[in-house]
Parts: sequence; C-alpha cells; structure tokens
Amino acid sequence: MNFIQTLAAAWKKNDSLLCVGLDPDPARFPASLRGKDEAIFEFCATIVTATADLVCAFKPQIAYFAAHRAEAQLEALIAHIHAAHPGIPVILDAKRGDIGDTAAQYAVEAFERFRADALTVNPYMGRDSIAPYLAYADKGVILLCRTSNPGGGDVQTLEADGERVYERVARMAAEEWNENGQCALVVGATYPAELARVRARVGDMPILSPGIGAQGGNIAAALQAGQTRDGTGLILNSSRAILYASAGEDYAHAARQGAKAARDAINAHRRRPPETAND
Amino acid sequence: MNFIQTLAAAWKKNDSLLCVGLDPDPARFPASLRGKDEAIFEFCATIVTATADLVCAFKPQIAYFAAHRAEAQLEALIAHIHAAHPGIPVILDAKRGDIGDTAAQYAVEAFERFRADALTVNPYMGRDSIAPYLAYADKGVILLCRTSNPGGGDVQTLEADGERVYERVARMAAEEWNENGQCALVVGATYPAELARVRARVGDMPILSPGIGAQGGNIAAALQAGQTRDGTGLILNSSRAILYASAGEDYAHAARQGAKAARDAINAHRRRPPETAND
Repeated sequence: MNFIQTLAAAWKKNDSLLCVGLDPDPARFPASLRGKDEAIFEFCATIVTATADLVCAFKPQIAYFAAHRAEAQLEALIAHIHAAHPGIPVILDAKRGDIGDTAAQYAVEAFERFRADALTVNPYMGRDSIAPYLAYADKGVILLCRTSNPGGGDVQTLEADGERVYERVARMAAEEWNENGQCALVVGATYPAELARVRARVGDMPILSPGIGAQGGNIAAALQAGQTRDGTGLILNSSRAILYASAGEDYAHAARQGAKAARDAINAHRRRPPETAND
Repeated sequence: MNFIQTLAAAWKKNDSLLCVGLDPDPARFPASLRGKDEAIFEFCATIVTATADLVCAFKPQIAYFAAHRAEAQLEALIAHIHAAHPGIPVILDAKRGDIGDTAAQYAVEAFERFRADALTVNPYMGRDSIAPYLAYADKGVILLCRTSNPGGGDVQTLEADGERVYERVARMAAEEWNENGQCALVVGATYPAELARVRARVGDMPILSPGIGAQGGNIAAALQAGQTRDGTGLILNSSRAILYASAGEDYAHAARQGAKAARDAINAHRRRPPETAND
C-alpha cells in the first residue's frame, strides 16, 4: 500500500482524523526522564503507545531531534512505530526544499534512512525540487501550501493572475505533480476560509492541517472547511497540547485523554457518522 | 565580528568572491577513500586545505551529510574550518523553514550544534519563521530569493501588485528583516537579469549566487548584474565543478586548480582591481 492508501485505512480503522505531532522538548519532560540517555526516544515511544489506537498518523518534527543530536533516536522511534503499530503512517515533518541533486539526498534521508512514509516539502523552489521525492512511488509528498502561522501571509497570500500563491501551489499539486497520487498539502486549521478554497481546488487530496491544539484553531470550522464528502480528507495535527497535557509523571495518561478528547471533538463535526460512511 | 563583517574581510584578504560548496558524494570519491570510515570528513577537509586561501566562504550542504548519517562528520568539518582557517565563514546550506518554536530548534541545530556562521533559510513561511534565526545577532541569515533551478519560476516569478514574488522577498529582507545587518539573499547566477533586479533593490546586501560551475551560469554576466560598486557583494558558489575536477587521487590538486581558475575568472570581471578598492 502507498502512503495515501495507508492513511485512508488508518482513518477508517481508528475512526480518527487526528495526527499526533512528536515535537520532543526535553525541558518539558517529566522529572523521571530528565538527563536520561535516550530520553527523547523514551518520551516519544511512550506517547506513541498511549495514543496509537486514536490516531491516523504520527508526525515527528525533525528539528527537535536535530537540535539535540538525536537522529539515531528518531531512526529508532520510526522503526518502533512501524514494528509496534503497523498501518499507522509516519509523516516526517522536515519541510525540505532544494534543487534536484540535493533534493535526492534529502529523499534518501527521509525515506531510506528514517523510513518515513511521507515527508513535508517546501514548494518555493518549484517542480524540479519536488520530483526527486515523487520518484519514491509509495511515499507521500506533503507540500506546504497555506501555513498556520501569521507570517504565512507574507508570501502565500500574494495574488498573481487572479490567484493567490497558495492557491497556485494547490493547483500545481493537483494538476501537475499528482500523477501518481502521492501528493498532499499543508493548510493551517487557523485559516478555515483558505482551507475551504484549497479543498475546492484539490478534490479529495489529503490535507495536513496543523493548528487545532496550542495554536487555537477551531475544530468545527476546520472540519466544515476541509473535510471531504465522506467525512475524511484531513490529517488534523496536534503536538504540544497532547505531548505536554501533563508536566508530571502521568504524561502518558494525560496524552491519551487529550488525544481521545481531540479525536472525539473532531468526530463530532465529521460529515457522516463513521458507521454509515460508504468507504 | 558578525557574519557580514567576516565575509567582507574574507573577500578582501583572499581577493576572492568564490565560495566552495561542500556537497560530498561518496560515489564520486577517489578509490583510496571508498568505504573508509570518516571518508566524508576526510574528502571535505582535503578540499578545504587545498582551497582555503582562494575562497571567501565554504558552504557545506547538509543533505549530503544527512543522507549518510554523517552529522558528526559535519560537526567535525566545521570545527576544523574554524580552527585551521579562522576568518573564512561557513555557510550551512540547509534551507530551513518552519514556524517560530520549530525554527528556534533549527537555529540551535545550525548555530549551536554545527557552529555555522550563516544559514540558508526558505522565506515561504514569512517573517515569524525567520525571526528565530535573526535572534542570533552575529549570525547570517541567507534567504532564498530567486533560485538557480528551472522550477524556481513556478512560485518565485509570479507577479503580485506589480512585483514578482522574489522581488518582494528581496524587499522584505532589505526593508523589514535586516535591522541588525544580518541578511543576505540567494539568487542564481543562471538568471543574471533577475540578479540585477535584486541588486537594485537591496543596496550592498550580500548575494549568494550558485550556478557558475556545473549549472553553467555565465561569470561575466553574473558579475555585471550582481557586484556592488566596490566590486564585492557576491558569494559565487561552485560545488561539483571544483570537488570533482578530477575523479582520481589528484583531486585536491585539481580542486585547487579549479578554484584558482574560478577565482581568477571572477576577478577579471570585478568592477575595480582589488588593489585600488577603497574599502
């Protein structure tokens, strides 16, 4: 199965559009993990165990590993997810972007070294910067489109030829880069009107939508704007609100409760109850 | 000294606008290095020794290290450049781009872990994605503007409000993000007309210009378009044409000859002979 098929199966199996983002910050770990070797792996693996039946994907953010020389722990974490929770895709959030020869090296890093199922990619450098990832036919390529942060508007909402830059990126993804059905897009849940404009342009293409947790995005508005007709189509990411739901030793339990609450809050706004969905 | 000051001193001391890009590809190493532990470090360090008096900067490309689990060799390489060739700035080419909290982790990776003097950054996510790098006042932030690859036009040359996206990025860098004099831009030598448009908007801001080597950019045209009035302002990068000038055991000698030829070809088109420059 390729990434999009794996994702669709996970939406269904776990009845969930929730993605847990793995942004490990050792300064926020419970006391028992502080200063421990492999603390980053242990913290993330515990979160994974506590939430794996509640999510459609996990999304480790590579910067949090790279800042701590923890690439080996990231490799181990992704291998652990594949082994212990097969069927839950792993999105490596690295927002890579470079020209062909160099992009090919980033593709090796993401797909061969780290064994991610999908990678986030920055579209600023255009088509030949994306092709090397698409060459891995079973992998997902998730292009930044309209990001959740305030500065996202500096470039992404500029209007050219009657179309905003993020709409152009969505259209190129849907019409030019998705020959093999590998593409998805990043559109922040913090901008539901723009999420709706993207959905209108890309059919059922999956949209990774950060911002429902600590960033304050409204779940109902995001669902209304972004879900497909069958009540899927979204990968709604929450990181800090789940990882750090408790600062204490009960962090795994608190993360599970937080993930369950988020999944249920999302499901309350899905277009059809999952038991009647015809997928 | 901050990055821009260090760069200006290196332009002058080595009478060079040439930057050697360190894109180590083990498949192209000479036979004596194949399969050797630390071959990546050894290859790059040999190139550095052979060219350090001919360049204004070195630019390691992180993807070539990450694809081979060679982050430790990258750390060692940058430490070696700082120790053996103080005054030659190291630009970490990683094209990072993410929102604030995550960008802060990438800044730790680049500036604290790898000890780079400057980092390439993707502007697609806008101002709050750039601020965490600017917080390191002595470091350089080199924003992608008009990249050297064909697909660069997919987003960068879209025209909004009478201004192309890359021109807008150049203007934001010059007018809004450069309060502390840390910014530089990436504009490919393969597009001299666009290099000239950027130069017209950014005063003496340094421009990192890839494409004069294997990508075929014309040195005379790049100099005419991009140099400042005093014949500096450019960091002209060449990677493969120098690293792989010879596939044999004479690679260091061949790299030196290639770097010397590139430096001299560049200098032949500089606005004033360096000995009469008034800086």
